[in-house]
Amino acid sequence: MPQSSSWKRIAGSICAPRGFRCAATFCGLKKLGTGKGSEKGRKDDLALIVSDVTAVAAGVFTTNRVCAPPVKISARNLRNGCARAVVVNSGNANACTGTKGLRDAETMTRVTAAAVAGVSDRRNQIGPAVRQRRYRKIRGQEVLVCSTGRIGVPMPMRNVERGIRACAPLLTRTNASARAVAEAIMTSDTHRKEIAIEFELAGHRVRIGGICKGAGMIQPGMATMLAFITTDTAISGSLLRQCLRKAVGGSFNRISVDGDMSTNDSVVILANGLAGNRRLTPSRSGGRVSPHQQSFQRALNHVCIELAKMIVRDGEGVSRFVTVRVDGAKSDRDAERVARAIANSSLVRTSWCGGDPNWGRILCAAGYSGASLEEELIEVGYSKTDSAPVVWAFRRGVPTSASFARLARITAKRQFEVHVNLALGRGEFVLYAADLTEDYVAFNKGDVSDPSSLGG
Amino acid sequence: MPQSSSWKRIAGSICAPRGFRCAATFCGLKKLGTGKGSEKGRKDDLALIVSDVTAVAAGVFTTNRVCAPPVKISARNLRNGCARAVVVNSGNANACTGTKGLRDAETMTRVTAAAVAGVSDRRNQIGPAVRQRRYRKIRGQEVLVCSTGRIGVPMPMRNVERGIRACAPLLTRTNASARAVAEAIMTSDTHRKEIAIEFELAGHRVRIGGICKGAGMIQPGMATMLAFITTDTAISGSLLRQCLRKAVGGSFNRISVDGDMSTNDSVVILANGLAGNRRLTPSRSGGRVSPHQQSFQRALNHVCIELAKMIVRDGEGVSRFVTVRVDGAKSDRDAERVARAIANSSLVRTSWCGGDPNWGRILCAAGYSGASLEEELIEVGYSKTDSAPVVWAFRRGVPTSASFARLARITAKRQFEVHVNLALGRGEFVLYAADLTEDYVAFNKGDVSDPSSLGG
Repeated sequence: MPQSSSWKRIAGSICAPRGFRCAATFCGLKKLGTGKGSEKGRKDDLALIVSDVTAVAAGVFTTNRVCAPPVKISARNLRNGCARAVVVNSGNANACTGTKGLRDAETMTRVTAAAVAGVSDRRNQIGPAVRQRRYRKIRGQEVLVCSTGRIGVPMPMRNVERGIRACAPLLTRTNASARAVAEAIMTSDTHRKEIAIEFELAGHRVRIGGICKGAGMIQPGMATMLAFITTDTAISGSLLRQCLRKAVGGSFNRISVDGDMSTNDSVVILANGLAGNRRLTPSRSGGRVSPHQQSFQRALNHVCIELAKMIVRDGEGVSRFVTVRVDGAKSDRDAERVARAIANSSLVRTSWCGGDPNWGRILCAAGYSGASLEEELIEVGYSKTDSAPVVWAFRRGVPTSASFARLARITAKRQFEVHVNLALGRGEFVLYAADLTEDYVAFNKGDVSDPSSLGG
Repeated sequence: MPQSSSWKRIAGSICAPRGFRCAATFCGLKKLGTGKGSEKGRKDDLALIVSDVTAVAAGVFTTNRVCAPPVKISARNLRNGCARAVVVNSGNANACTGTKGLRDAETMTRVTAAAVAGVSDRRNQIGPAVRQRRYRKIRGQEVLVCSTGRIGVPMPMRNVERGIRACAPLLTRTNASARAVAEAIMTSDTHRKEIAIEFELAGHRVRIGGICKGAGMIQPGMATMLAFITTDTAISGSLLRQCLRKAVGGSFNRISVDGDMSTNDSVVILANGLAGNRRLTPSRSGGRVSPHQQSFQRALNHVCIELAKMIVRDGEGVSRFVTVRVDGAKSDRDAERVARAIANSSLVRTSWCGGDPNWGRILCAAGYSGASLEEELIEVGYSKTDSAPVVWAFRRGVPTSASFARLARITAKRQFEVHVNLALGRGEFVLYAADLTEDYVAFNKGDVSDPSSLGG
């Protein structure tokens, strides 16, 4: 890897960058006593993330044609490349809810704008210029909205509006509130997912923080869960969009838990520029990418990859985390086809669940992936980690002499890597995948006596 | 359905048509005491199917690029459109076995040809003309070979050759021997799959019989298991190929158990002409399809669909049989995309397992299928059977007033239908699917202490 890790991990997440505040509350969307919430026993289900100043913003959303109203509203509100706040709820996906759903999502942005505009944060003022802007009116169009939870159930808007108004006065820039938000967005996740890093950009210390939720309906092809990233980097809107798309392509689009793509997936980034660095702008056409832009891209990639891996590890019923590395394909697209066929194969995933080095099923999945390959050239092997030596199981059209026991010692681990070399070209792809367990089925088969099991 | 069922179901399967004999034996490929075998306690794992006279033959094979040697040899031997015998074994797929695997598959055809040529069936002679031909020498190229079982393990050829020679003298035309063969080809199947029908063709009574095995690695996109069909219809090779392809497209390619496509899938048909009907030939270009050809096609479709449904019902761990009907799509291809996305979605299939009418997951799968659709037009509903009224759950972009309890009463059944209407065009597709259960995972996760769990 030519990539030098010039950043350092710091405490906290979305409030680690300067000028971001957040808060979470319970407004009755998650059933009391079920789901996972904050440690206090409350099951928070509504959260706000607010930038003290108007932030440059970008988002990547589900490509599912059945796409939830909040996704439509957020995508529309991002058209001007700016945002001040994000409102997010769990417990109800506001999906398949028709025009009422659209109206509700819009109302959420409007109510948030009004609630947030009237609130100051006297404990954590960061300068008169900022304070001045903070009190300026916020419009609904400056608010992004995300929902996750049950599909096809109308939003109980009275609860939601009351929740937003109750949440706004709680906004603080503490790591504790970021933690509460990371917990409030959880649905079937078993623990919160947070990260923050700090790095130098042209003499300025800048920060990126992120939280996300995942668990079910995780399949790439696009952003596949909710992720909220904040940064105090000063950056142009077009470059932020470009960097986010690249980072998502190499992270959230490279994970697969169950091959399903949700109606609500969203990755959103807000960059408020308060780090004070000279604004990053896209390199001119034909010009080389600047080292500063490279630094930012790498740091953002790192945040996204770490968050994405957290999602796979905490996938519904997941017991094993498997990195699928395909190379030697005729093209990157072909390598991706093979990796996805392997990671989405029920038979491969159940064999992983049993710790079974069943390379036959891997070969079989590669065979029907649609990628060009020749059975006589393809190689399949396992390794414990990225840097550990690969033990090849199949080579030159026949099984190698590696014993079953030797392969099984690798696949018995909670975490291992599958290597497939097609030996046809230079195409490669890496996918972070998970096994298919009885727990996944038990969790998702739902409880027919309980209509609220209609997950989404 | 404009289709009149002019055939009648009769006893038996592959030996019901005139001039077919078969036998099964144990040669040590299946472990003793595991797997399912004949009632006698023997776990048969090798079988022969022989036509008394040279039969017109056709086959449809896996489109998996990792394709087993027996598939390659059978496809080659079918090039001249004729066959006399089929040798099939379970317990070892002879897949991913390199050039030795190819040599072994070829040896199996040669040994079968020699063993079968020397054997007569004095108890069941059907006329001097036939007897005369029966003793003529058979070449290896007239034998088809199919294997199913573990991947990547060399065939123990001594056992196999001994088995073939032991099997040949047992050849009879009884339904009992057909039953034994239907059991010998089983791997993870829990029961044998047989059918035979009789119908009239231009004043002659003709018969079609079939057996198959399925269970795991069942996904369409091509033939997806082993199926052997015999008929005494007189038919030209080109028409038989055409009819088989059509029948497979409407049956074995319309089932999905786990979305995986095996390396060994084969559907083979032998038509020996002993019914004495005037030989069916393809209708001339531009001409109408003859009523006789239509009758044969319908009867063959019926046999294939019934066999295909048996495979889904007996799929690994399957507890519910779900017919997915998609119509109103822009094209048949689009309807197929939607049906497959639904039938392959882990989340949809686990909800079926729980008897949960989770139409949100169905909509979601339709949304990422790649088909053209509009959320405001799409309709999703359930019915108990093909003829029962559809209870719509989602319409005009919102859930209908149908209560959860009412929908759940349908999906609680062991068998129900999912209806998706895209309301965009006239494309349609029907897919026979199954739920995803904890039993499936438990069965397929394998036993790492036992290398023979390497299924294929």
